[in-house]
Amino acid sequence: MSDNFEKLISPLEKEIDDLLPSISVDCVILGYKNQQLKVLLLQWKHSGKWALPGGFVRRNENLDDAAQRVLEQRTGLSKIFLKQFHTFGSLERSTIKQIDAGYKALIDFHKQNKKVYEWINNRFISTGYFALADIRKTHPIPDAFSQKCEWKPITAMPDLILDHNTITEKALDYLGVQLNYLPIGLSLLPQKFTMQDLQKLYEAILGRSLDRSNFQRKMLKLGMLVRKEKLMTGAANKAPYLYSFNRAVYKKLLQEGIGFSY
Amino acid sequence: MSDNFEKLISPLEKEIDDLLPSISVDCVILGYKNQQLKVLLLQWKHSGKWALPGGFVRRNENLDDAAQRVLEQRTGLSKIFLKQFHTFGSLERSTIKQIDAGYKALIDFHKQNKKVYEWINNRFISTGYFALADIRKTHPIPDAFSQKCEWKPITAMPDLILDHNTITEKALDYLGVQLNYLPIGLSLLPQKFTMQDLQKLYEAILGRSLDRSNFQRKMLKLGMLVRKEKLMTGAANKAPYLYSFNRAVYKKLLQEGIGFSY
Repeated sequence: MSDNFEKLISPLEKEIDDLLPSISVDCVILGYKNQQLKVLLLQWKHSGKWALPGGFVRRNENLDDAAQRVLEQRTGLSKIFLKQFHTFGSLERSTIKQIDAGYKALIDFHKQNKKVYEWINNRFISTGYFALADIRKTHPIPDAFSQKCEWKPITAMPDLILDHNTITEKALDYLGVQLNYLPIGLSLLPQKFTMQDLQKLYEAILGRSLDRSNFQRKMLKLGMLVRKEKLMTGAANKAPYLYSFNRAVYKKLLQEGIGFSY
Repeated sequence: MSDNFEKLISPLEKEIDDLLPSISVDCVILGYKNQQLKVLLLQWKHSGKWALPGGFVRRNENLDDAAQRVLEQRTGLSKIFLKQFHTFGSLERSTIKQIDAGYKALIDFHKQNKKVYEWINNRFISTGYFALADIRKTHPIPDAFSQKCEWKPITAMPDLILDHNTITEKALDYLGVQLNYLPIGLSLLPQKFTMQDLQKLYEAILGRSLDRSNFQRKMLKLGMLVRKEKLMTGAANKAPYLYSFNRAVYKKLLQEGIGFSY
């Protein structure tokens, strides 16, 4: 009974008429904690499969605002760095719906509701956005279709529905290419961090290791780091310095590209 | 009479049922000639206004293929470097249709054909692609709505319909940021070129002048240029050298970013 009831009040049903057909958004929300780059994922109720947070675009809503809405709903945060990176429009996105176990379960669940069933079977072109969030400040919230909303390290990503693994990889590629033009460190690191924290972040995004002394020398030369006290955890002579960003210098450098070569 | 007849056979009418609603593509096709960066534009029949080449996406067509189709139809070329750069999805794109003189003329022209009239009045989210074409090899062809298809220098762009000027600027911004990752020189320059040709191309994309000796020194250091004979036009002692690209080195450098700093 309660199951049937849920079918009748599918959260999509009452929204469909107000949505733009054929268009959706998907968000790759990135965070950084314990020297690991992480992505915020949803676990779907009807299949247990994981997915990127996403949604549809309202007829009276800007595309960017739709992504911002999804981001706020999942993280509870409004002032997050958000940027569009690619639009996914292959025909395969539709045909895969019929063979993807995660999506198939969602389709089957809505079989008796013609309107929702047809809507989710439509071909959608999806615009991908990535966001840089401070994990320490987020409060992940599942959406109506999900049972969990969690941060997963990019080095141990589960199998995602449809082309969501591809979308995630493309976001990371884009981030690597645009590294010099995006406030990566400013958005993902805590206010004070060690040089190693910063290097591990760059390495996670670039997907390769960097030479420690070269990294430190080049970073300091840019003039956007301010040296603070030492991080006292072990022996004083081995304690690393903490750094923070000089925001004004950082933002000025971003305008023409930081000019950091790896 | 012939005017009414044209209204009846609007090229859109028979296609609409096969098109995906809400989605379009616009192409910023760039070329380089006489040390000028140029964009391929269409002049619309019904208003004389200029527009980027664009089109709709067929229900059975990949988004990228729609852009490729537009590109081939306008330039007559199939093997051109084409890349998506941004999707334009603001609500303003629709509201501007009613006040933009160029688009208004198109709407008015189709007033008696309800199907076409409603279609062109719809809200469209448009994915922008840019292409790098060799002007010397293209044969610009107007589409069904246009009377002219011409290369215009980016330093003297006419007023374009809707948000097409914005789309063009965004393409150039993207090109500037991605300069180290795109085969700009390889796609836009003739097989042999002078160092000045190359520098002017970079300057046109970056929108600022670069120091001549620094540019030459850094470019040569990358190892992707091969020095050829001198270009003999004036006094032999002032004749500049011609260069060509070492394609293998160029393509290898592109993979991790050329690493050229300006």
